[in-house]
Amino acid sequence: EYDDVNIASLAQLTAEPGVTWIQVRGLTAQSVEGIGRQFAIHPLVLEDILHTNQRPKFSDYGDYLAVILKSLVVTAGTIDYNSEQVSLILGPNYVISFLESLPEDNDVLHNVYERVKSRRGKIARLGADYLLYALVDSLVDHYFLALEHLGEKIETLEEQIAARPRPELLGELHALKQDMLFMRKSVWPVRELVSALERGESALIQETTLIYLRDIYDHIVQVIETVEIYRDMLSGMLDIYLSSVSNRMSEVMKMLTIISTIFIPLTFIAGVYGMNFDYMPELRWQYGYPLILAVMLIMSLLMLRYFQKRKWL
Amino acid sequence: EYDDVNIASLAQLTAEPGVTWIQVRGLTAQSVEGIGRQFAIHPLVLEDILHTNQRPKFSDYGDYLAVILKSLVVTAGTIDYNSEQVSLILGPNYVISFLESLPEDNDVLHNVYERVKSRRGKIARLGADYLLYALVDSLVDHYFLALEHLGEKIETLEEQIAARPRPELLGELHALKQDMLFMRKSVWPVRELVSALERGESALIQETTLIYLRDIYDHIVQVIETVEIYRDMLSGMLDIYLSSVSNRMSEVMKMLTIISTIFIPLTFIAGVYGMNFDYMPELRWQYGYPLILAVMLIMSLLMLRYFQKRKWL
Amino acid sequence: EYDDVNIASLAQLTAEPGVTWIQVRGLTAQSVEGIGRQFAIHPLVLEDILHTNQRPKFSDYGDYLAVILKSLVVTAGTIDYNSEQVSLILGPNYVISFLESLPEDNDVLHNVYERVKSRRGKIARLGADYLLYALVDSLVDHYFLALEHLGEKIETLEEQIAARPRPELLGELHALKQDMLFMRKSVWPVRELVSALERGESALIQETTLIYLRDIYDHIVQVIETVEIYRDMLSGMLDIYLSSVSNRMSEVMKMLTIISTIFIPLTFIAGVYGMNFDYMPELRWQYGYPLILAVMLIMSLLMLRYFQKRKWL
Amino acid sequence: EYDDVNIASLAQLTAEPGVTWIQVRGLTAQSVEGIGRQFAIHPLVLEDILHTNQRPKFSDYGDYLAVILKSLVVTAGTIDYNSEQVSLILGPNYVISFLESLPEDNDVLHNVYERVKSRRGKIARLGADYLLYALVDSLVDHYFLALEHLGEKIETLEEQIAARPRPELLGELHALKQDMLFMRKSVWPVRELVSALERGESALIQETTLIYLRDIYDHIVQVIETVEIYRDMLSGMLDIYLSSVSNRMSEVMKMLTIISTIFIPLTFIAGVYGMNFDYMPELRWQYGYPLILAVMLIMSLLMLRYFQKRKWL
Amino acid sequence: EYDDVNIASLAQLTAEPGVTWIQVRGLTAQSVEGIGRQFAIHPLVLEDILHTNQRPKFSDYGDYLAVILKSLVVTAGTIDYNSEQVSLILGPNYVISFLESLPEDNDVLHNVYERVKSRRGKIARLGADYLLYALVDSLVDHYFLALEHLGEKIETLEEQIAARPRPELLGELHALKQDMLFMRKSVWPVRELVSALERGESALIQETTLIYLRDIYDHIVQVIETVEIYRDMLSGMLDIYLSSVSNRMSEVMKMLTIISTIFIPLTFIAGVYGMNFDYMPELRWQYGYPLILAVMLIMSLLMLRYFQKRKWL
Repeated sequence: EYDDVNIASLAQLTAEPGVTWIQVRGLTAQSVEGIGRQFAIHPLVLEDILHTNQRPKFSDYGDYLAVILKSLVVTAGTIDYNSEQVSLILGPNYVISFLESLPEDNDVLHNVYERVKSRRGKIARLGADYLLYALVDSLVDHYFLALEHLGEKIETLEEQIAARPRPELLGELHALKQDMLFMRKSVWPVRELVSALERGESALIQETTLIYLRDIYDHIVQVIETVEIYRDMLSGMLDIYLSSVSNRMSEVMKMLTIISTIFIPLTFIAGVYGMNFDYMPELRWQYGYPLILAVMLIMSLLMLRYFQKRKWL
Repeated sequence: EYDDVNIASLAQLTAEPGVTWIQVRGLTAQSVEGIGRQFAIHPLVLEDILHTNQRPKFSDYGDYLAVILKSLVVTAGTIDYNSEQVSLILGPNYVISFLESLPEDNDVLHNVYERVKSRRGKIARLGADYLLYALVDSLVDHYFLALEHLGEKIETLEEQIAARPRPELLGELHALKQDMLFMRKSVWPVRELVSALERGESALIQETTLIYLRDIYDHIVQVIETVEIYRDMLSGMLDIYLSSVSNRMSEVMKMLTIISTIFIPLTFIAGVYGMNFDYMPELRWQYGYPLILAVMLIMSLLMLRYFQKRKWL
Repeated sequence: EYDDVNIASLAQLTAEPGVTWIQVRGLTAQSVEGIGRQFAIHPLVLEDILHTNQRPKFSDYGDYLAVILKSLVVTAGTIDYNSEQVSLILGPNYVISFLESLPEDNDVLHNVYERVKSRRGKIARLGADYLLYALVDSLVDHYFLALEHLGEKIETLEEQIAARPRPELLGELHALKQDMLFMRKSVWPVRELVSALERGESALIQETTLIYLRDIYDHIVQVIETVEIYRDMLSGMLDIYLSSVSNRMSEVMKMLTIISTIFIPLTFIAGVYGMNFDYMPELRWQYGYPLILAVMLIMSLLMLRYFQKRKWL
Repeated sequence: EYDDVNIASLAQLTAEPGVTWIQVRGLTAQSVEGIGRQFAIHPLVLEDILHTNQRPKFSDYGDYLAVILKSLVVTAGTIDYNSEQVSLILGPNYVISFLESLPEDNDVLHNVYERVKSRRGKIARLGADYLLYALVDSLVDHYFLALEHLGEKIETLEEQIAARPRPELLGELHALKQDMLFMRKSVWPVRELVSALERGESALIQETTLIYLRDIYDHIVQVIETVEIYRDMLSGMLDIYLSSVSNRMSEVMKMLTIISTIFIPLTFIAGVYGMNFDYMPELRWQYGYPLILAVMLIMSLLMLRYFQKRKWL
Repeated sequence: EYDDVNIASLAQLTAEPGVTWIQVRGLTAQSVEGIGRQFAIHPLVLEDILHTNQRPKFSDYGDYLAVILKSLVVTAGTIDYNSEQVSLILGPNYVISFLESLPEDNDVLHNVYERVKSRRGKIARLGADYLLYALVDSLVDHYFLALEHLGEKIETLEEQIAARPRPELLGELHALKQDMLFMRKSVWPVRELVSALERGESALIQETTLIYLRDIYDHIVQVIETVEIYRDMLSGMLDIYLSSVSNRMSEVMKMLTIISTIFIPLTFIAGVYGMNFDYMPELRWQYGYPLILAVMLIMSLLMLRYFQKRKWL
């Protein structure tokens, strides 16, 4: 729990008894490489820490483990994917965390930090690997928050589509689908990672911590399953959207057809008696006009009957 | 078979010979933790018992096994998914079951309880692991009831869609699809769970019980396969719905086209002889009017012939 | 080859040298349990035999193997899925078969029985496990017949759809799709079953029989592959159906458009010269009428030209 | 390299040093069984050789290997799927090949025969298993030819669909899709087969030949991948076809809408001034007619403007 | 770093201490076979090197490893798939690379060459297997460039489709889909290849190099995942395209329906009063004409109201 310290003095910290957590905020090549030298970390790991678009991964270097993760944060209604790469180094009695962003009041690691502080006693007792667990656990819990947020958005969208399918909603639907793609991309490798950690082949992970890692594993699987269900739900919503659009179109077509089918023949009859032939006896009948109007009325009633029978009305 | 007993005295029960089943109804942090202390259960298990939205899972802690399941209950025509989390702890000669809801007359565990009572002799003979089997078996049997119920709903819907495809049915279809998604989500992990139990690596599961567990496994696989078939059937019904909607639309279009194609040219002819040119010799012919009516009649008959040949009628 | 014998005496049969095949037709709880007692069969197996909607499965109980299968029979043009559950028990020198239906002249087991009789010498020589193979082989051969039957139905449907796509055909197509789903559901577990048998871990299966079991396995895989191909073909036929429906619709639309596009403007022109304005000089021209007719003719010819250029005719 | 020899003398051939290749053309139960007896081949293998609709497979009988394959031949523009079953028996120093068809000048095995002849030295040096490799390799090379042929057909079809989507092309597309299904069905089991051969568990396959078998394996995988890509391409072409059909339809609809939307209101106006009311002051105006014509012109220009703005023209 | 040297003298180079990289540009059967003889390379490998449409693969021949890869180059806006086959032979202290093309200033290997030169010290220290890693790493980095390029094209296309869906865009979309198919085909086998290398079963790959190979493996997995996400995105864009086309069509239909539904009945009324019956009292009324105009106006306003209520306007 120090700040802006001299890098050279960090190695001494780990000589003290207890578990040391070194937080590095704001990555510079210089500071990362400095720490790398102090703790004898492989250059490839340092490179991965500095290039912050890595896939989540886990590597076991014997003396230390390197874990690279993504944090997912929900800020004011939007999800910030891959918002931050969190790199963790687990040594015998220390954990080093690397974050690109400078500390702010309400950022991910802050929450983590608070949670970790509250378990301080347990950490001192259970060792550095338990601290690693606590950090990863907190990050995974943030995935649940992000998922919940997406779940709410999906529900809102579902209601809107049911109420009135507008083309804009389709755009939103596809945006959500892509959110799911990225969510999945972020979470899947974490599953492998935790599974690799949990297989317990590293001497740095104690027996007692394995149960906790298995718990994270179960959480990750639950996240993945929920993502898959959301994806299926979104596909279902696309079907509903499309079929409700085509439903509206078929309604429009019916309207057109009913109007046309009734009036086109009537207009034809009117056209016939609008012809100027010299010899059209009907035109001379006294009741020709009301008669023809009656014929037209009957015709349209029959048509309406027909439409009703066909269930078009 | 006691009720509301003193937690401290529970541990003594297990000292008696025979198999003890402790039912805990209505979860409070206090009671769960009390029992946890009495039976030396890992805090993570207690946490899972208390947070009732866990994924079904199985963990082997050496001295005891923890099994977390979902019960699916059909009540008055609706399926209550994830209705209850049933947590089971299997010790050497006891089973502890945890349920959120207070006991009611017709709840799941009641049925289970009745069934278990009827096998009491067998349980005493075969041990606590057989009791665990009996409990899980009863829960899995409830899945079959839920599936049967869904199957009936699917059949009804299929008939309704065949009779008359209405947009409301599409909504029902998608609701059923989602029911299937949740059903699948609930049942899949049970498969892994039973498979893990059945692999028989725990000393708490006797050789003789393995055959029974394999039987549950077969049932679970049958549930899963049926869910998959229902999903395929629902997809097929969506296809039928969509194509029957588009079929009706194409009928509407044909109607419009037939009426328009017959009357638009006739109306044009009527329009021609309604023109007011001074020199239109046909208008002066004595049989001009009947002649033109005959022409119109022949034209429409030819049209109808053409439509018939094209199989539009 | 006895009939309606005393159950108690059955066990003695197996004391004789040679292979004994005991056929049980028409399942009653009493007879099944009686036989179960005689041959010391596990209650779970007896339960599976009595509940005839089991998933095909195989279990090894050391002294005997239990195999549960479905027979598929084609009778007079319809496939009778899951028509019968055939349960087989293989002991050291006997096979017991259980069938729900009473013997009839042309039922599945009859065919099997004939085939088995013709291989009698071989069975005596090769043992009870060869008899089991012969029974399963005969059942699997019936799957081929059922598949062939479905294949013919698919071909007929394909021709009908190509000739004229009617909505009824869509119903047939979906019925066939469901047939495939059930076929697949029936056959998949048989694959696992035969594969488990063939792995040859049971002492009851001799080395020499394994080659024959592998042959059945190859047949089952061929059935499964054919089912998958049929499913793909049915999907393709759905595409063809839908696109040919939409094709017909687009033809209908073209018809409507051509007629409307030609006659609506002409009708307008006729309407203009049907107006009753006092001062319309064209109406007074001597050649006004033939002129306007010529204009109309030229307009419609130009339209037709345009449609031809756009490949609508 | 003999012809129509006495079956009994065949076994003697294998006593000579070197590799013997026995070609059997035109399968009769008699000749196959005769050879089977001579070389002590299992009846199931002989059955598979005679029933020429087998799935490609490989079985190891210790003393000999049985390989069953399909040849795919392109003759004059059509692919002849499953054209021939080629059965191969590999013994310690001989290969027996069985083909249904009688020898013709340009059949598959002839090509193979030529290729094999050109590697004769190598075969004598490397043994019968190398001959088996050479035969399988030649057959697999024919798959590439068939694939190439299908690839050209797909390309041609793609161009035709891009140029003008006609319903006939859809039929061709589906024919190609089915070709792919059958191609896949033929090639997949060959992969397993070669993989089983290559795992090198048979004493009949020498270490040096394994490298060659791995080469075939790579080729088969390449064939399978290409088939998958072709399938994806055909799906893409179906999408293009469908959307270009719907595109043409939407063009037709636009045409209809533009013509109708312009002329229906104009016709209405003409209809109004064609009414025969006694008191219609406009009819008496001197410039009524040109005025109304001007109004109509302006209306249609405004309409055209509107369509242009909506990008319908 | 020599050029156009005598093949015979190459083998001597490898006798010198240090790591030797032999670049062969422009493949001729003669030069490849010459080198093959010098370094005792298996004829199958030489064949693979010469036939430049091989699937990426890796084979371990004990004394040397053969790696065959594809380079992907972006030149002036188009991706050149499978542009070059790069074949690499790794011996104890040398790497031989084979490329079809003659050296140009800005080709792939040139870039690689530059990068490799800059790590020359490391290569001398870490051995020939590190050189192999450096070469493969450079090629994989080019895949990222190609992917980035495709990603930009997808983004541009997405914007164009959102702005205005034109049929041409569909063609582009499918071209991109096929690019993805080929990309996937090129990259998947590289994954297997690197994974095989990394499993570290060859004595030619040192322990220290394994970490670097695992890094490449992670990169390849990232490439594959991105390809899959792009494929999903393209599918989503196809959905958006199709539904926006159908949306425009439904707009066109609405326009047609509104115009027709308003004017067809009005035209009918005008037609009625255009009839020439002798006795039509309305025609004689003084306010008949304005009255009928008012009726028409009211009718159309009611219609518009109705459309507005149905949300068609």
